[in-house]
Amino acid sequence: MGGERLSRAAAHRLSLYLRALAVWLPDAGKVSSGRIAEACGVTDAQVRRDLAALGNLGQRGIGYDARELTAAIRAALGIDRTWRSVLVGVGNLARALLRYQGFRAQGFEIVGLFDNDPGKVGQVVEGLTVEAVDRLGERVLELGAELAVLTVPAETAQPVADVLAAAGVRGVLNFAPVLLRLPPRVKLVTVDLAIQLEQLAFLIQLGEPEPRAEDGG
Amino acid sequence: MGGERLSRAAAHRLSLYLRALAVWLPDAGKVSSGRIAEACGVTDAQVRRDLAALGNLGQRGIGYDARELTAAIRAALGIDRTWRSVLVGVGNLARALLRYQGFRAQGFEIVGLFDNDPGKVGQVVEGLTVEAVDRLGERVLELGAELAVLTVPAETAQPVADVLAAAGVRGVLNFAPVLLRLPPRVKLVTVDLAIQLEQLAFLIQLGEPEPRAEDGG
Repeated sequence: MGGERLSRAAAHRLSLYLRALAVWLPDAGKVSSGRIAEACGVTDAQVRRDLAALGNLGQRGIGYDARELTAAIRAALGIDRTWRSVLVGVGNLARALLRYQGFRAQGFEIVGLFDNDPGKVGQVVEGLTVEAVDRLGERVLELGAELAVLTVPAETAQPVADVLAAAGVRGVLNFAPVLLRLPPRVKLVTVDLAIQLEQLAFLIQLGEPEPRAEDGG
Repeated sequence: MGGERLSRAAAHRLSLYLRALAVWLPDAGKVSSGRIAEACGVTDAQVRRDLAALGNLGQRGIGYDARELTAAIRAALGIDRTWRSVLVGVGNLARALLRYQGFRAQGFEIVGLFDNDPGKVGQVVEGLTVEAVDRLGERVLELGAELAVLTVPAETAQPVADVLAAAGVRGVLNFAPVLLRLPPRVKLVTVDLAIQLEQLAFLIQLGEPEPRAEDGG
Protein backbone atom coordinates (compact mmCIF):
# COMPACT_ATOMS: atom_id res chain seq x y z
CA MET A 1 0.00 0.00 0.00
CA GLY A 2 1.30 3.41 -0.92
CA GLY A 3 0.49 5.02 2.40
CA GLU A 4 -2.74 6.62 1.24
CA ARG A 5 -5.89 5.27 2.77
CA LEU A 6 -8.29 3.70 0.33
CA SER A 7 -11.85 4.97 0.28
CA ARG A 8 -14.65 2.48 0.14
CA ALA A 9 -15.53 3.67 -3.36
CA ALA A 10 -11.94 3.03 -4.43
CA ALA A 11 -12.09 -0.43 -2.85
CA HIS A 12 -15.20 -1.14 -4.92
CA ARG A 13 -13.40 -0.08 -8.10
CA LEU A 14 -10.43 -2.32 -7.20
CA SER A 15 -12.87 -5.24 -6.99
CA LEU A 16 -14.03 -4.41 -10.52
CA TYR A 17 -10.45 -4.19 -11.83
CA LEU A 18 -9.81 -7.61 -10.30
CA ARG A 19 -12.74 -9.02 -12.30
CA ALA A 20 -11.31 -7.63 -15.54
CA LEU A 21 -7.81 -8.91 -14.73
CA ALA A 22 -9.16 -12.39 -13.96
CA VAL A 23 -10.62 -12.59 -17.48
CA TRP A 24 -7.30 -11.64 -19.06
CA LEU A 25 -4.90 -13.36 -16.69
CA PRO A 26 -4.45 -16.65 -18.57
CA ASP A 27 -2.73 -14.86 -21.46
CA ALA A 28 -1.99 -11.35 -20.19
CA GLY A 29 1.57 -10.27 -19.52
CA LYS A 30 1.28 -6.50 -19.37
CA VAL A 31 -2.00 -4.56 -19.25
CA SER A 32 -2.54 -0.83 -19.67
CA SER A 33 -4.64 1.38 -17.41
CA GLY A 34 -6.66 2.28 -20.51
CA ARG A 35 -7.63 -1.32 -21.10
CA ILE A 36 -8.73 -1.75 -17.48
CA ALA A 37 -10.62 1.56 -17.66
CA GLU A 38 -12.48 0.52 -20.77
CA ALA A 39 -13.48 -2.88 -19.37
CA CYS A 40 -14.75 -1.38 -16.11
CA GLY A 41 -16.41 1.76 -17.46
CA VAL A 42 -14.28 4.25 -15.51
CA THR A 43 -11.81 6.85 -16.78
CA ASP A 44 -8.17 6.09 -17.50
CA ALA A 45 -7.15 8.81 -15.01
CA GLN A 46 -9.25 7.17 -12.28
CA VAL A 47 -7.61 3.78 -12.85
CA ARG A 48 -4.14 5.36 -12.71
CA ARG A 49 -4.97 7.19 -9.48
CA ASP A 50 -6.42 4.07 -7.86
CA LEU A 51 -3.45 1.92 -8.82
CA ALA A 52 -0.90 4.59 -7.84
CA ALA A 53 -2.32 4.34 -4.30
CA LEU A 54 -1.20 0.69 -4.20
CA GLY A 55 2.46 1.57 -4.66
CA ASN A 56 4.92 1.78 -7.49
CA LEU A 57 3.48 -0.83 -9.83
CA GLY A 58 3.25 0.28 -13.45
CA GLN A 59 5.94 1.27 -15.90
CA ARG A 60 5.34 4.28 -18.13
CA GLY A 61 4.66 3.17 -21.71
CA ILE A 62 4.74 -0.52 -20.76
CA GLY A 63 1.81 -0.90 -18.39
CA TYR A 64 1.23 -3.13 -15.41
CA ASP A 65 2.25 -6.73 -14.93
CA ALA A 66 -1.15 -8.45 -14.73
CA ARG A 67 -0.07 -11.02 -12.15
CA GLU A 68 1.73 -8.50 -9.92
CA LEU A 69 -1.21 -6.09 -10.15
CA THR A 70 -3.68 -8.83 -9.22
CA ALA A 71 -1.61 -9.70 -6.14
CA ALA A 72 -1.34 -6.03 -5.11
CA ILE A 73 -5.10 -5.48 -5.41
CA ARG A 74 -5.86 -8.64 -3.44
CA ALA A 75 -3.51 -7.48 -0.67
CA ALA A 76 -5.09 -4.01 -0.60
CA LEU A 77 -8.59 -5.51 -0.30
CA GLY A 78 -7.55 -7.98 2.37
CA ILE A 79 -8.26 -11.06 0.25
CA ASP A 80 -4.67 -12.32 -0.03
CA ARG A 81 -5.67 -14.84 2.66
CA THR A 82 -8.52 -17.23 3.42
CA TRP A 83 -11.52 -16.06 5.46
CA ARG A 84 -13.21 -18.91 7.28
CA SER A 85 -16.94 -18.21 7.29
CA VAL A 86 -20.15 -19.71 8.60
CA LEU A 87 -23.48 -19.51 6.81
CA VAL A 88 -26.72 -19.26 8.77
CA GLY A 89 -30.08 -20.06 7.16
CA VAL A 90 -29.95 -22.88 4.62
CA GLY A 91 -32.61 -21.94 2.06
CA ASN A 92 -32.49 -21.42 -1.70
CA LEU A 93 -30.27 -18.36 -1.45
CA ALA A 94 -27.79 -20.24 0.74
CA ARG A 95 -27.68 -23.11 -1.74
CA ALA A 96 -27.07 -20.66 -4.57
CA LEU A 97 -24.25 -18.99 -2.61
CA LEU A 98 -22.67 -22.35 -1.74
CA ARG A 99 -22.53 -23.29 -5.42
CA TYR A 100 -21.24 -19.88 -6.39
CA GLN A 101 -17.62 -20.36 -7.44
CA GLY A 102 -16.71 -16.74 -6.84
CA PHE A 103 -16.63 -16.99 -3.05
CA ARG A 104 -13.97 -19.66 -2.84
CA ALA A 105 -12.00 -18.10 -5.70
CA GLN A 106 -11.78 -14.83 -3.75
CA GLY A 107 -10.66 -16.58 -0.55
CA PHE A 108 -13.94 -17.02 1.31
CA GLU A 109 -14.35 -20.54 2.64
CA ILE A 110 -17.67 -21.64 4.13
CA VAL A 111 -16.75 -24.00 6.99
CA GLY A 112 -20.13 -24.38 8.74
CA LEU A 113 -23.86 -24.37 7.94
CA PHE A 114 -26.57 -23.64 10.49
CA ASP A 115 -30.36 -23.67 10.46
CA ASN A 116 -33.15 -23.62 13.06
CA ASP A 117 -35.29 -26.11 11.14
CA PRO A 118 -34.88 -29.61 12.75
CA GLY A 119 -35.79 -31.08 9.35
CA LYS A 120 -32.68 -29.50 7.81
CA VAL A 121 -30.24 -30.26 10.65
CA GLY A 122 -28.11 -33.26 9.69
CA GLN A 123 -28.67 -32.78 5.94
CA VAL A 124 -25.51 -32.61 3.84
CA VAL A 125 -25.46 -29.59 1.51
CA GLU A 126 -22.49 -29.07 -0.82
CA GLY A 127 -20.37 -31.34 1.36
CA LEU A 128 -21.22 -29.71 4.71
CA THR A 129 -23.58 -31.06 7.37
CA VAL A 130 -26.22 -28.57 8.53
CA GLU A 131 -25.98 -27.96 12.30
CA ALA A 132 -28.54 -26.64 14.80
CA VAL A 133 -28.45 -22.87 15.19
CA ASP A 134 -28.51 -23.33 19.01
CA ARG A 135 -24.90 -24.41 18.77
CA LEU A 136 -23.82 -21.48 16.57
CA GLY A 137 -21.91 -19.57 19.26
CA GLU A 138 -19.73 -22.43 20.43
CA ARG A 139 -19.20 -23.75 16.89
CA VAL A 140 -18.00 -20.37 15.57
CA LEU A 141 -15.21 -20.58 18.13
CA GLU A 142 -14.41 -24.25 17.40
CA LEU A 143 -14.40 -23.66 13.64
CA GLY A 144 -12.28 -20.51 13.95
CA ALA A 145 -14.76 -18.65 11.75
CA GLU A 146 -14.20 -14.91 11.34
CA LEU A 147 -17.04 -14.07 8.96
CA ALA A 148 -20.72 -14.99 8.80
CA VAL A 149 -23.15 -14.96 5.91
CA LEU A 150 -26.73 -14.40 7.06
CA THR A 151 -29.47 -15.80 4.82
CA VAL A 152 -32.16 -16.06 7.49
CA PRO A 153 -35.62 -14.41 7.46
CA ALA A 154 -35.81 -10.78 8.62
CA GLU A 155 -37.32 -11.62 12.01
CA THR A 156 -34.49 -13.95 13.10
CA ALA A 157 -31.59 -11.90 11.72
CA GLN A 158 -30.95 -9.69 14.79
CA PRO A 159 -30.86 -12.48 17.41
CA VAL A 160 -28.54 -14.53 15.18
CA ALA A 161 -26.34 -11.46 14.63
CA ASP A 162 -26.15 -10.96 18.40
CA VAL A 163 -24.93 -14.55 18.88
CA LEU A 164 -22.35 -14.10 16.12
CA ALA A 165 -21.08 -10.83 17.60
CA ALA A 166 -20.81 -12.42 21.05
CA ALA A 167 -18.88 -15.33 19.54
CA GLY A 168 -16.34 -12.86 18.13
CA VAL A 169 -16.94 -12.84 14.37
CA ARG A 170 -15.32 -9.83 12.70
CA GLY A 171 -17.77 -9.33 9.87
CA VAL A 172 -21.30 -10.15 8.76
CA LEU A 173 -22.60 -10.28 5.20
CA ASN A 174 -26.33 -9.84 5.70
CA PHE A 175 -28.94 -10.76 3.09
CA ALA A 176 -31.93 -10.37 5.44
CA PRO A 177 -34.00 -7.27 4.61
CA VAL A 178 -33.43 -5.62 7.99
CA LEU A 179 -31.14 -2.94 9.45
CA LEU A 180 -28.91 -4.91 11.85
CA ARG A 181 -27.35 -3.42 14.97
CA LEU A 182 -23.82 -4.64 15.65
CA PRO A 183 -21.01 -3.39 17.87
CA PRO A 184 -18.54 -1.20 15.90
CA ARG A 185 -15.85 -3.90 16.01
CA VAL A 186 -18.08 -6.15 13.88
CA LYS A 187 -18.23 -4.92 10.29
CA LEU A 188 -21.45 -5.20 8.37
CA VAL A 189 -22.25 -5.32 4.68
CA THR A 190 -25.92 -5.63 3.88
CA VAL A 191 -27.03 -6.92 0.50
CA ASP A 192 -30.57 -5.69 -0.06
CA LEU A 193 -31.64 -7.16 -3.36
CA ALA A 194 -34.62 -4.83 -3.71
CA ILE A 195 -32.28 -1.83 -3.37
CA GLN A 196 -30.41 -3.07 -6.43
CA LEU A 197 -33.67 -3.11 -8.36
CA GLU A 198 -34.54 0.33 -7.03
CA GLN A 199 -31.20 1.62 -8.28
CA LEU A 200 -32.01 0.16 -11.68
CA ALA A 201 -35.41 1.90 -11.74
CA PHE A 202 -33.68 5.11 -10.69
CA LEU A 203 -31.12 4.85 -13.51
CA ILE A 204 -33.87 4.27 -16.06
CA GLN A 205 -35.81 7.25 -14.75
CA LEU A 206 -32.63 9.32 -14.83
CA GLY A 207 -32.32 8.33 -18.48
CA GLU A 208 -28.67 8.89 -19.14
CA PRO A 209 -25.71 6.60 -19.74
CA GLU A 210 -24.04 5.61 -16.49
CA PRO A 211 -20.45 4.54 -16.02
CA ARG A 212 -20.28 0.90 -15.05
CA ALA A 213 -18.32 1.47 -11.81
CA GLU A 214 -21.32 1.30 -9.52
CA ASP A 215 -19.87 3.15 -6.59
CA GLY A 216 -21.99 6.25 -6.51
CA GLY A 217 -18.80 8.30 -6.35
CA MET B 1 -38.56 16.63 -7.17
CA GLY B 2 -36.98 19.90 -6.11
CA GLY B 3 -35.26 20.50 -9.41
CA GLU B 4 -31.89 19.25 -8.23
CA ARG B 5 -30.65 16.09 -9.86
CA LEU B 6 -30.14 13.17 -7.51
CA SER B 7 -26.77 11.48 -7.50
CA ARG B 8 -26.63 7.74 -7.49
CA ALA B 9 -25.20 7.80 -3.95
CA ALA B 10 -28.17 9.92 -2.85
CA ALA B 11 -30.55 7.48 -4.53
CA HIS B 12 -28.93 4.68 -2.55
CA ARG B 13 -29.43 6.59 0.70
CA LEU B 14 -33.09 7.23 -0.22
CA SER B 15 -33.51 3.46 -0.55
CA LEU B 16 -32.14 3.07 2.98
CA TYR B 17 -34.47 5.76 4.36
CA LEU B 18 -37.37 3.92 2.73
CA ARG B 19 -36.37 0.75 4.65
CA ALA B 20 -36.39 2.62 7.95
CA LEU B 21 -39.73 4.30 7.17
CA ALA B 22 -41.29 0.93 6.27
CA VAL B 23 -40.45 -0.36 9.75
CA TRP B 24 -42.09 2.63 11.43
CA LEU B 25 -44.97 3.25 9.05
CA PRO B 26 -47.66 1.24 10.83
CA ASP B 27 -47.55 3.60 13.81
CA ALA B 28 -45.53 6.62 12.67
CA GLY B 29 -47.20 9.94 12.09
CA LYS B 30 -44.29 12.35 12.06
CA VAL B 31 -40.63 11.33 11.91
CA SER B 32 -37.55 13.50 12.43
CA SER B 33 -34.49 13.62 10.19
CA GLY B 34 -32.48 12.66 13.29
CA ARG B 35 -34.40 9.44 13.75
CA ILE B 36 -33.91 8.49 10.10
CA ALA B 37 -30.23 9.42 10.34
CA GLU B 38 -29.71 7.23 13.38
CA ALA B 39 -31.47 4.21 11.87
CA CYS B 40 -29.49 4.45 8.62
CA GLY B 41 -26.09 5.39 10.04
CA VAL B 42 -25.74 8.71 8.20
CA THR B 43 -25.58 12.24 9.58
CA ASP B 44 -28.66 14.31 10.34
CA ALA B 45 -27.38 17.03 7.97
CA GLN B 46 -27.09 14.48 5.16
CA VAL B 47 -30.67 13.29 5.65
CA ARG B 48 -31.93 16.90 5.63
CA ARG B 49 -30.02 17.66 2.44
CA ASP B 50 -31.25 14.51 0.70
CA LEU B 51 -34.87 15.14 1.67
CA ALA B 52 -34.70 18.85 0.81
CA ALA B 53 -33.86 17.78 -2.76
CA LEU B 54 -37.27 16.07 -2.95
CA GLY B 55 -39.18 19.30 -2.40
CA ASN B 56 -40.74 21.13 0.48
CA LEU B 57 -41.63 18.20 2.72
CA GLY B 58 -40.70 18.66 6.37
CA GLN B 59 -41.86 21.23 8.91
CA ARG B 60 -39.27 22.78 11.19
CA GLY B 61 -39.65 21.41 14.72
CA ILE B 62 -42.35 18.96 13.68
CA GLY B 63 -40.59 16.65 11.25
CA TYR B 64 -41.77 14.79 8.18
CA ASP B 65 -45.08 13.06 7.64
CA ALA B 66 -44.00 9.42 7.30
CA ARG B 67 -46.56 8.52 4.67
CA GLU B 68 -45.97 11.64 2.56
CA LEU B 69 -42.19 11.16 2.79
CA THR B 70 -42.47 7.52 1.72
CA ALA B 71 -44.50 8.53 -1.34
CA ALA B 72 -42.03 11.30 -2.24
CA ILE B 73 -39.04 8.96 -2.01
CA ARG B 74 -40.77 6.29 -4.07
CA ALA B 75 -41.54 8.88 -6.77
CA ALA B 76 -37.94 10.15 -6.76
CA LEU B 77 -36.60 6.61 -7.17
CA GLY B 78 -39.09 5.74 -9.93
CA ILE B 79 -40.81 3.02 -7.91
CA ASP B 80 -44.21 4.72 -7.59
CA ARG B 81 -45.32 2.36 -10.36
CA THR B 82 -45.07 -1.34 -11.24
CA TRP B 83 -42.12 -2.61 -13.29
CA ARG B 84 -42.98 -5.75 -15.26
CA SER B 85 -39.90 -7.95 -15.31
CA VAL B 86 -38.75 -11.26 -16.72
CA LEU B 87 -36.31 -13.58 -14.98
CA VAL B 88 -33.87 -15.68 -17.01
CA GLY B 89 -32.14 -18.72 -15.50
CA VAL B 90 -34.28 -20.68 -13.04
CA GLY B 91 -31.77 -22.02 -10.49
CA ASN B 92 -31.54 -21.72 -6.69
CA LEU B 93 -30.86 -17.99 -6.82
CA ALA B 94 -33.92 -17.41 -9.02
CA ARG B 95 -36.09 -19.42 -6.63
CA ALA B 96 -34.79 -17.38 -3.71
CA LEU B 97 -35.52 -14.13 -5.57
CA LEU B 98 -39.03 -15.28 -6.52
CA ARG B 99 -39.87 -15.95 -2.88
CA TYR B 100 -38.29 -12.71 -1.76
CA GLN B 101 -41.16 -10.46 -0.67
CA GLY B 102 -39.17 -7.27 -1.15
CA PHE B 103 -39.35 -7.26 -4.93
CA ARG B 104 -43.12 -7.19 -5.19
CA ALA B 105 -43.40 -4.78 -2.25
CA GLN B 106 -41.16 -2.30 -4.08
CA GLY B 107 -43.16 -2.60 -7.30
CA PHE B 108 -41.18 -5.18 -9.23
CA GLU B 109 -43.42 -7.88 -10.69
CA ILE B 110 -41.89 -10.97 -12.28
CA VAL B 111 -44.19 -11.85 -15.19
CA GLY B 112 -42.13 -14.48 -17.01
CA LEU B 113 -39.53 -17.18 -16.28
CA PHE B 114 -37.10 -18.55 -18.86
CA ASP B 115 -34.49 -21.29 -18.91
CA ASN B 116 -32.50 -23.16 -21.56
CA ASP B 117 -32.82 -26.52 -19.78
CA PRO B 118 -35.61 -28.57 -21.48
CA GLY B 119 -36.08 -30.39 -18.15
CA LYS B 120 -37.12 -27.11 -16.50
CA VAL B 121 -39.33 -25.77 -19.30
CA GLY B 122 -42.97 -26.36 -18.40
CA GLN B 123 -42.28 -26.57 -14.65
CA VAL B 124 -44.37 -24.26 -12.49
CA VAL B 125 -42.26 -22.19 -10.06
CA GLU B 126 -43.97 -19.79 -7.66
CA GLY B 127 -47.05 -19.75 -9.87
CA LEU B 128 -45.26 -19.11 -13.18
CA THR B 129 -44.56 -21.65 -15.93
CA VAL B 130 -40.92 -21.78 -17.06
CA GLU B 131 -40.61 -21.05 -20.80
CA ALA B 132 -37.86 -21.87 -23.29
CA VAL B 133 -35.19 -19.18 -23.57
CA ASP B 134 -35.46 -19.42 -27.39
CA ARG B 135 -38.74 -17.57 -27.13
CA LEU B 136 -37.38 -14.86 -24.81
CA GLY B 137 -37.30 -12.05 -27.40
CA GLU B 138 -40.88 -12.41 -28.62
CA ARG B 139 -42.23 -13.08 -25.11
CA VAL B 140 -40.65 -9.91 -23.67
CA LEU B 141 -42.71 -7.96 -26.19
CA GLU B 142 -45.91 -9.94 -25.56
CA LEU B 143 -45.54 -9.66 -21.78
CA GLY B 144 -44.73 -5.95 -21.94
CA ALA B 145 -41.68 -6.53 -19.74
CA GLU B 146 -39.37 -3.56 -19.20
CA LEU B 147 -36.82 -5.11 -16.86
CA ALA B 148 -34.95 -8.40 -16.79
CA VAL B 149 -33.27 -10.23 -13.93
CA LEU B 150 -30.37 -12.39 -15.13
CA THR B 151 -29.51 -15.41 -13.00
CA VAL B 152 -27.80 -17.43 -15.73
CA PRO B 153 -24.22 -18.79 -15.68
CA ALA B 154 -21.47 -16.36 -16.75
CA GLU B 155 -20.99 -17.91 -20.18
CA THR B 156 -24.61 -17.45 -21.30
CA ALA B 157 -25.17 -14.00 -19.80
CA GLN B 158 -23.99 -11.89 -22.76
CA PRO B 159 -26.02 -13.67 -25.48
CA VAL B 160 -29.14 -13.50 -23.28
CA ALA B 161 -28.46 -9.80 -22.58
CA ASP B 162 -28.19 -9.19 -26.36
CA VAL B 163 -31.61 -10.78 -26.92
CA LEU B 164 -33.11 -8.70 -24.10
CA ALA B 165 -31.60 -5.47 -25.45
CA ALA B 166 -32.90 -6.24 -28.96
CA ALA B 167 -36.37 -6.92 -27.50
CA GLY B 168 -36.35 -3.43 -25.96
CA VAL B 169 -35.95 -3.99 -22.22
CA ARG B 170 -34.91 -0.80 -20.41
CA GLY B 171 -32.90 -2.31 -17.60
CA VAL B 172 -31.04 -5.47 -16.60
CA LEU B 173 -30.29 -6.63 -13.06
CA ASN B 174 -27.37 -8.99 -13.61
CA PHE B 175 -26.26 -11.60 -11.09
CA ALA B 176 -23.89 -13.40 -13.47
CA PRO B 177 -20.22 -12.79 -12.58
CA VAL B 178 -19.37 -11.11 -15.89
CA LEU B 179 -19.01 -7.56 -17.22
CA LEU B 180 -21.95 -7.24 -19.64
CA ARG B 181 -21.94 -4.96 -22.68
CA LEU B 182 -25.25 -3.24 -23.36
CA PRO B 183 -26.30 -0.27 -25.48
CA PRO B 184 -26.44 2.96 -23.41
CA ARG B 185 -30.24 3.04 -23.55
CA VAL B 186 -30.35 -0.21 -21.53
CA LYS B 187 -29.39 0.41 -17.90
CA LEU B 188 -27.38 -2.18 -16.04
CA VAL B 189 -26.96 -2.96 -12.38
CA THR B 190 -24.63 -5.86 -11.65
CA VAL B 191 -24.84 -7.68 -8.33
CA ASP B 192 -21.52 -9.40 -7.79
CA LEU B 193 -21.90 -11.31 -4.55
CA ALA B 194 -18.15 -11.86 -4.15
CA ILE B 195 -17.60 -8.09 -4.36
CA GLN B 196 -19.84 -7.69 -1.32
CA LEU B 197 -17.66 -10.13 0.58
CA GLU B 198 -14.53 -8.34 -0.64
CA GLN B 199 -15.94 -5.07 0.69
CA LEU B 200 -16.49 -6.78 4.03
CA ALA B 201 -12.89 -8.03 4.11
CA PHE B 202 -11.75 -4.52 3.19
CA LEU B 203 -13.76 -2.94 6.03
CA ILE B 204 -12.31 -5.41 8.53
CA GLN B 205 -8.80 -4.73 7.29
CA LEU B 206 -9.49 -0.99 7.46
CA GLY B 207 -10.50 -1.62 11.06
CA GLU B 208 -12.57 1.41 11.81
CA PRO B 209 -16.30 1.95 12.35
CA GLU B 210 -18.07 2.59 9.10
CA PRO B 211 -21.32 4.44 8.61
CA ARG B 212 -24.05 2.05 7.54
CA ALA B 213 -24.96 3.97 4.36
CA GLU B 214 -22.98 1.82 1.98
CA ASP B 215 -22.64 4.28 -0.85
CA GLY B 216 -18.91 4.78 -0.99
CA GLY B 217 -19.45 8.54 -0.83
